[in-house]
Amino acid sequence: MLFAKPLATLISQLEKLPGVGPKSAQRLAYHILGQPEEDVRRLADAIRDARDRMTLCERCQGFSEASICAICSDPKRDPSLICVVAEAKDVTAIERMNEFRGTYHVLHGVLSPMDGVGPERLKIRELLARLESGSVAEVILATNPTVEGDATALYLAQLLRPIGVKVTRLAHGMPIGGDLDFADQATLLSAFEYRREI
Amino acid sequence: MLFAKPLATLISQLEKLPGVGPKSAQRLAYHILGQPEEDVRRLADAIRDARDRMTLCERCQGFSEASICAICSDPKRDPSLICVVAEAKDVTAIERMNEFRGTYHVLHGVLSPMDGVGPERLKIRELLARLESGSVAEVILATNPTVEGDATALYLAQLLRPIGVKVTRLAHGMPIGGDLDFADQATLLSAFEYRREI
Repeated sequence: MLFAKPLATLISQLEKLPGVGPKSAQRLAYHILGQPEEDVRRLADAIRDARDRMTLCERCQGFSEASICAICSDPKRDPSLICVVAEAKDVTAIERMNEFRGTYHVLHGVLSPMDGVGPERLKIRELLARLESGSVAEVILATNPTVEGDATALYLAQLLRPIGVKVTRLAHGMPIGGDLDFADQATLLSAFEYRREI
Repeated sequence: MLFAKPLATLISQLEKLPGVGPKSAQRLAYHILGQPEEDVRRLADAIRDARDRMTLCERCQGFSEASICAICSDPKRDPSLICVVAEAKDVTAIERMNEFRGTYHVLHGVLSPMDGVGPERLKIRELLARLESGSVAEVILATNPTVEGDATALYLAQLLRPIGVKVTRLAHGMPIGGDLDFADQATLLSAFEYRREI
């Protein structure tokens, strides 16, 4: 028995976190044991509190403290423009840009038949409900440019077009500051496809 | 305000963990929000429980559930042989080898004047107390072969030799499976110094 029970339990719990292997779980566990009791309590409380107090925004399905999130309830945001993302963390990435003034819709995943994730597992019903009012002008599909992200965007585009809403997809192309020499073929091809007159 | 309060608190708490930057703290936080409440409670409880229930072994200063740890209280271990390590996780590394049958002493750090860590901050008094009985035959200094680890070993050697106990240091040399061509100069030099007849 290499570890006492409470330590073994902690290590196995930490190992479940994404990107935390057995070695870093051990390192984190020993770090926690060596911290002042008050600091450890604060960490444990923060974990529990965040999970208990954060809920899904009824409108955009992003994480929120209130039933309608800060973005959806902000009168300065344009509710006729919905940016659809796979994960809540993608909202943060776009918000950091400080440019987008529309609202979001978080799918909480992408279609992935291999992992058994079909459309019913994503927040698509909730997106369709938001379109029912007819006041939405454009849906921007901002899932990642991966096989699953593209498939999810394609699926949604086919679902939304009949409703008569404008459906767009984020452009693919050269990243700013990128080097043609290092760009992969698919990105370069997309950069040509999306080219525009200057 | 990019994050709601409970989420912001969680992110800032996670950021304090070693090796967790702002980006991975966010990723971990969103992961936690997306997990079933029961799983999150189990993680928070494991953190708190481990800290509450693990204490320092009165003898070796390693982490232990009881006042004397499993290794120190094991009659099959040789208490006349003490392996001194810097951190509790080093005990795990040596135990994994499944060869060492002596006991340990955890210093909980190494001498580091730059960081204000002097001898009084390490568990050296406790080590000296263990030697008072006169029943300890050998102290193996197994701090890391770094500047601080070496300095700590040297300091301890000078402190312990007058007591009349045998003081040894782990060998430096080529790692098993290593390549002469890739060995750094200091390691190679040590391998020559530590060479023995075969």
